[in-house]
Amino acid sequence: MDKTTLFKMSYGLYIIGTRDGEKYAGCVVNTVTQATSSPVTLTVCINKDNYTNACIKKCKEFSVSILSENTAQGIIGIFGFSSGRDTDKFPKAAYGLTPSGLPYIKEGAAGYLQCKVIDCIDDYTHTIFIAEVQEAENISDAPPMTYAYYHNVIKGKTPKNASTFVNEPKEEPGASYVCSVCGYVYPGGKEEFERLPDDYRCPICRVAKSKFVMRVSI
Amino acid sequence: MDKTTLFKMSYGLYIIGTRDGEKYAGCVVNTVTQATSSPVTLTVCINKDNYTNACIKKCKEFSVSILSENTAQGIIGIFGFSSGRDTDKFPKAAYGLTPSGLPYIKEGAAGYLQCKVIDCIDDYTHTIFIAEVQEAENISDAPPMTYAYYHNVIKGKTPKNASTFVNEPKEEPGASYVCSVCGYVYPGGKEEFERLPDDYRCPICRVAKSKFVMRVSI
Repeated sequence: MDKTTLFKMSYGLYIIGTRDGEKYAGCVVNTVTQATSSPVTLTVCINKDNYTNACIKKCKEFSVSILSENTAQGIIGIFGFSSGRDTDKFPKAAYGLTPSGLPYIKEGAAGYLQCKVIDCIDDYTHTIFIAEVQEAENISDAPPMTYAYYHNVIKGKTPKNASTFVNEPKEEPGASYVCSVCGYVYPGGKEEFERLPDDYRCPICRVAKSKFVMRVSI
Repeated sequence: MDKTTLFKMSYGLYIIGTRDGEKYAGCVVNTVTQATSSPVTLTVCINKDNYTNACIKKCKEFSVSILSENTAQGIIGIFGFSSGRDTDKFPKAAYGLTPSGLPYIKEGAAGYLQCKVIDCIDDYTHTIFIAEVQEAENISDAPPMTYAYYHNVIKGKTPKNASTFVNEPKEEPGASYVCSVCGYVYPGGKEEFERLPDDYRCPICRVAKSKFVMRVSI
């Protein structure tokens, strides 16, 4: 099997929002797919290790924020490369609440959906949630962010819990600085990175320059 | 609920291939999503009215051809706007066979997958098939065709059995020629359409000029 064929499948990027009692939780996914149009239902696959998965199983509802090309780059870092068990993600973003009180991303999103779970299917490492869409609102006219745009334009990486995770192919020989949190590789050379100002932050997950480590590929 | 929000979700376009004994069957979908990476599984939603749905339930396997921007426009017409009950679709396209003997689109595809069904979930009008990917091969380096590209660049329409089907919004007032098979609206005016050569064919579903009807919107 040539696993690179799987990279040719197209997706959008979404933030799933839910809650654990009074606390909000969420994560980034690329696996939202409309399944039926009447009634409107969708499927979303979420890793069983994700805190969001456990919260949805309990509260039976979630929001989907459809990210756009205007989404602040740090959003994917906050929601994709840290766990809601350790960090309260939504207060770090500009968020609103759906009619039923679920958090969604307000700034840089194309729109949001509010969904009620109707079935949960076990699929190895992930749960496939089937849900009915109860509310849907547009937020902006910005083009939706595709997974290809995230990888090719923003040079973003795939979180290890994602459905599409694979170990990255071997890099070109040489030294490069790599974000130790999200895996983003600084595209300029070693010297260029070292000359960056001290307040430089990872464009994907917003951690400080000090969190970058030098990696030498041979 | 503002149903236009649903249009902001991103997808690829795929031909599902399967068989009914010795006969091949297939349809076009936008609903293929990788669900897990180890093992590699995916989900695909197919309308219960589709002949392909019944065939997959019987033979428990299917191929996924990942369409590219180089896919001949007629392919989507053949697979999206006619039923395998009435027409033998694969012989109308350049097709190959996967190791297990399933048909896939050879010309203008980015790659193909061979999948074995592990579960079928009922979801109103559609079945969600969960399948393990057994084979995957690249066919070309052409950019994968996204649903947005199909709608915005090729001006393609959505088959009525699709997960994302909605009645099209009202057109601008005036007369236009519309394909009676797939709903494609000729973008030039009435006079321009009438001056087209007799061998003009619908760019989406390849039917003859005579299958176009004039529609007047007021």
